[in-house]
Amino acid sequence: MSSTIEARLSELGVSLPEAAAPAANYVPYVITGNQLFVSGQLPMEAGKIKVSGKLGADLGVDEGKAAARLCAINLLAQAKAATGDLEKVTRLIKIVGFVNSTGDFADQPQVIDGASDFLVEAMGDKGRHARSAVSAASLPFGVAVEIEAIFEISE
Amino acid sequence: MSSTIEARLSELGVSLPEAAAPAANYVPYVITGNQLFVSGQLPMEAGKIKVSGKLGADLGVDEGKAAARLCAINLLAQAKAATGDLEKVTRLIKIVGFVNSTGDFADQPQVIDGASDFLVEAMGDKGRHARSAVSAASLPFGVAVEIEAIFEISE
Amino acid sequence: MSSTIEARLSELGVSLPEAAAPAANYVPYVITGNQLFVSGQLPMEAGKIKVSGKLGADLGVDEGKAAARLCAINLLAQAKAATGDLEKVTRLIKIVGFVNSTGDFADQPQVIDGASDFLVEAMGDKGRHARSAVSAASLPFGVAVEIEAIFEISE
Repeated sequence: MSSTIEARLSELGVSLPEAAAPAANYVPYVITGNQLFVSGQLPMEAGKIKVSGKLGADLGVDEGKAAARLCAINLLAQAKAATGDLEKVTRLIKIVGFVNSTGDFADQPQVIDGASDFLVEAMGDKGRHARSAVSAASLPFGVAVEIEAIFEISE
Repeated sequence: MSSTIEARLSELGVSLPEAAAPAANYVPYVITGNQLFVSGQLPMEAGKIKVSGKLGADLGVDEGKAAARLCAINLLAQAKAATGDLEKVTRLIKIVGFVNSTGDFADQPQVIDGASDFLVEAMGDKGRHARSAVSAASLPFGVAVEIEAIFEISE
Repeated sequence: MSSTIEARLSELGVSLPEAAAPAANYVPYVITGNQLFVSGQLPMEAGKIKVSGKLGADLGVDEGKAAARLCAINLLAQAKAATGDLEKVTRLIKIVGFVNSTGDFADQPQVIDGASDFLVEAMGDKGRHARSAVSAASLPFGVAVEIEAIFEISE
């Protein structure tokens, strides 16, 4: 694979969207020292929600993974907007993935792998991250997945 | 608006309560470097829980917003207890808002705006933060909202 | 109590397990500066899930506390794997505890105390941490509790 994140994204056929505006009165990211905190991202594409519904009821694991991948693409889009250049992102520290699911759903790890796999594909070893994956009782606008992240950046 | 957080709070008619003791065996905040981690705060006022119940069933969005605002007031009370002087808080980095809701509730962003709006009113531009808003299956003591925060402080 | 964490663990009769491999495509911890982010840990013992089920339905608070304690043991095991020597851990900053529960369960603080109590027993004052405790609609593999942590370490 190529060594820059932009080149990897290109090889993956992914073009980052415009970083989404927040859904409410907050900002999409905050930089403090060499940490970049990105607000929870939703499975949006071209400004619209693409995957809503509940895992364990309306949606299968593959649909959940696709939702998680979209969240991850939007996390990277925010990281690019925050830094101006993804090469300033020195690593992904951590994500928390929230899955909109029924009370007996147990495949949160597979769903959030849709994000983790993409982030490692796009960022290489810099993309290996700590993670929690849990279910939420529900999520904004009924989306299937919401993911937040902390990146390390060069100051 | 005034330039100090204390003066803004005064203009908003908000007097910060005594920082609440934790509900269990932990501490209300930890400072590490120039980051202040505040434990999840509940919608308490004068030492009592003010807003309990479930969004989407017992409570409307406005009641949820009021709960979120109380959580935010308690976050600031902890920040004051931690620093001794809110002017040492250089910015709010991030909040995570957990909403006690039914499985089909979708207005988490509006509910957590009750906190975000207050924090920006009280802190000005320093109060603009990254954020995630999700539903929890339930919350301690049946409260409607729980919010945790990370602040940046001067060392 | 003894002054080193290893000696305290020994007095508590706890031997740390091998740090568990992650359940999916991510890493169990990431170090950035003097912060150590540990991925969400499950109530596993000897490589197997020990406590699954839902608080408020299948499990009582004591079973939940035991699950939380196991998560905390696994957090310390990861901290040891990350640092090579627990004396390099200067303090525990924060945990987030997710409880797999019904919609009307309200004793998240008592459940997560199973982790907090152990961490203070094992780490002494260094173990006093900020915390959030919330319910998740469900958790990976149906476990009862998942807990993530941020530790401060010496660089």
